[in-house]
Amino acid sequence: MTNLEIMGANAKAASRFLMTAGAKKNVALKLIADALRNNSREIIEANNIDIENGKKAGLTNSLLDRLKLSEERINDMAAGVEQVAALPDPIGKILDGKTLKNGLQIEKVTVPMGVIGIIYEARPNVTSDAAALCLKAGSAVILRGGKEAINSNKAVARIMRTAIEEAGFPRDCIALVEDTSRESATELMQLSDYLDVLIPRGGTGLIKSVVNNAKVPVIETGVGNCHVYIDKSADVEMAKNIVFNAKTSRPSVCNAIETVLVHKDIAAEALPAIKAELDKKSVEIRGCEVTRKILGNSVVPATEEDYSVEFLDYILAVKVVDDLDNAISHIAKYSTGHSECIVTNDYNSANEFSSRVDSAAVYVNASTRFTDGGEFGLGAEIGISTQKLHARGPMGLNELTSSKYIIKGCGQIR
Amino acid sequence: MTNLEIMGANAKAASRFLMTAGAKKNVALKLIADALRNNSREIIEANNIDIENGKKAGLTNSLLDRLKLSEERINDMAAGVEQVAALPDPIGKILDGKTLKNGLQIEKVTVPMGVIGIIYEARPNVTSDAAALCLKAGSAVILRGGKEAINSNKAVARIMRTAIEEAGFPRDCIALVEDTSRESATELMQLSDYLDVLIPRGGTGLIKSVVNNAKVPVIETGVGNCHVYIDKSADVEMAKNIVFNAKTSRPSVCNAIETVLVHKDIAAEALPAIKAELDKKSVEIRGCEVTRKILGNSVVPATEEDYSVEFLDYILAVKVVDDLDNAISHIAKYSTGHSECIVTNDYNSANEFSSRVDSAAVYVNASTRFTDGGEFGLGAEIGISTQKLHARGPMGLNELTSSKYIIKGCGQIR
Repeated sequence: MTNLEIMGANAKAASRFLMTAGAKKNVALKLIADALRNNSREIIEANNIDIENGKKAGLTNSLLDRLKLSEERINDMAAGVEQVAALPDPIGKILDGKTLKNGLQIEKVTVPMGVIGIIYEARPNVTSDAAALCLKAGSAVILRGGKEAINSNKAVARIMRTAIEEAGFPRDCIALVEDTSRESATELMQLSDYLDVLIPRGGTGLIKSVVNNAKVPVIETGVGNCHVYIDKSADVEMAKNIVFNAKTSRPSVCNAIETVLVHKDIAAEALPAIKAELDKKSVEIRGCEVTRKILGNSVVPATEEDYSVEFLDYILAVKVVDDLDNAISHIAKYSTGHSECIVTNDYNSANEFSSRVDSAAVYVNASTRFTDGGEFGLGAEIGISTQKLHARGPMGLNELTSSKYIIKGCGQIR
Repeated sequence: MTNLEIMGANAKAASRFLMTAGAKKNVALKLIADALRNNSREIIEANNIDIENGKKAGLTNSLLDRLKLSEERINDMAAGVEQVAALPDPIGKILDGKTLKNGLQIEKVTVPMGVIGIIYEARPNVTSDAAALCLKAGSAVILRGGKEAINSNKAVARIMRTAIEEAGFPRDCIALVEDTSRESATELMQLSDYLDVLIPRGGTGLIKSVVNNAKVPVIETGVGNCHVYIDKSADVEMAKNIVFNAKTSRPSVCNAIETVLVHKDIAAEALPAIKAELDKKSVEIRGCEVTRKILGNSVVPATEEDYSVEFLDYILAVKVVDDLDNAISHIAKYSTGHSECIVTNDYNSANEFSSRVDSAAVYVNASTRFTDGGEFGLGAEIGISTQKLHARGPMGLNELTSSKYIIKGCGQIR
């Protein structure tokens, strides 16, 4: 057996313990939170090594900032774990049930996934967030973070493993893959004897690699080429505010918008107002021909590529469309199925857009930035699914569970 | 674009029509049922070619029987389509909803998957069953049956495509891959730009091939290495009846049992009774050493392999275990996660077995043969999922849907 197979087998064994761990899971989570706080110095020392290595490797300042752990951030990590402990247990809920004519009593009940794999990039806080959510959901977790954060992740994982052992849990409920080579990532994606599901969290490259290489069930997350469509009946002031918020409040996240579509009958009024607002944050506009006629040549001509990419930056593509159908077709062609918004005052347009746009979250008159587990009231979030199987949109504890049928009889045969 | 890519793109376009087809879907389904009945001669002629080819290729009688279509079987196919039409529409159900403090109204609503791929083997009735379920669930379907049934499948698909066109539906809501080469199957498994989910229906070999080659989300179905555990407190008469039913009522199906585990304290009483019953159907028993001591040397010694395989035949592996824990461990090691049963009169044993056995369906005192969409009251079934993502156990119309969030606001920004 390879190291990873051994890790998988140990995690599988630990997952059997977790199936019936019940409220003891909260004790273990509280011990994790305490241990993170009590061992913050050890974590910060390990993190310093990552930061030094990152500087030598020439990481950008924004990456170094994501990587950096401080006393305050470690407290936030511990508080996050405690928040998860405070959430209702997602396991053992009876989702459905009935008694058949033959007297069989059938219950459909939530159960743990088993072993969950998480592949992620440079944020070491994901290590504790993801472990806490998986543990609360009754599953063992195999974590595989980016090489940039390996020392921080090792420290955090070691502390969590020791903490849960104090609560009487097997250490292998939480495992970290310490080998950060490409090969180990690929092996993890194919560990189908042990992994029940794999959730990649990161950029387009990581997600694509997982989808192409995985032999275990995957939940795709997070890539968001999101749109706002401004209908001809829109309130221009509202449209302006929504576009400004959805583009500029945090451009690097997946629920930020990348393209605005504007109905041709309102373009001459709406576009100058929107541009004036976006200019406050120096947003670069890449527009279609009509957009450039209205806004002038300071607008860069938009290419096909501009409609396809996630800029994740202060850049916005703009296209004037003939009607609602055109807007829906554009979204069908370019969207990643994350979040889209219509700004409208027309009842039929709102309904058509809501029912025909095939994305995880479809908004009428509100910013796409609300697509988030916290905002949706899920308590905590493991990611935002952009696929249609199992979970779609923000995934909380419930989305980390499976179900089974329990059937009680008194000797029934068929 | 390859032929399959063109088929995928056409199916995707058709799926957009289906998103909002509503009750018109039932009209299309009724036209399909009528067309199957009215064109039964054409189907039977095509089927005769498959049967002749099958005989030349040396197919077994049981395979030829599965392949064979008669007037009666075509009537059954049509009736199956009508049954699906009569089921409630799974699309547009509001699963959850709330109003947030900021006034946003969030609804989680069921929506179609989009394009569903079905890969199956020699039964031509699957062609109409699967198409009807997918269409009712609002999804386009790409069907890829076995080469043995290709002429029958082509006839059935052609008739269905013409029928839905009469109802104003795009023909491409239903597509059949006519190239039955291995290459076309592999290409279908990797058609990730167009397929939202792929469901293989067939034996272990097909399922493994799909899991290993697919780049689209897969729902694994159907492989069932199922167990009955006879607890020390079991009613021997009930145990005997359940084992006999679960093994012999239809040995070739996935919910039939392959192994019986018996508590050591009841083995001497239960095993001879069970053997006497199984002898009526000449079931071959492959037993552990203790079993052979009790039942004598007519019992074949069981190998490791015997505990691992789906016999799908009149063969049963038997093992005497020390206690409930041993039974649960054996099941954890060998089961495919389909259906398992405990026969017991002990309250704690029933609870422990139900909560600790990690299979899609766990029975107390009832035959595993009930794991079936019809028996569970789902109305119709596309397969039985043995994986934990999205759906587990029998899958009906609801399991063929996805969901999305619709969020209505009045200008909220974050």
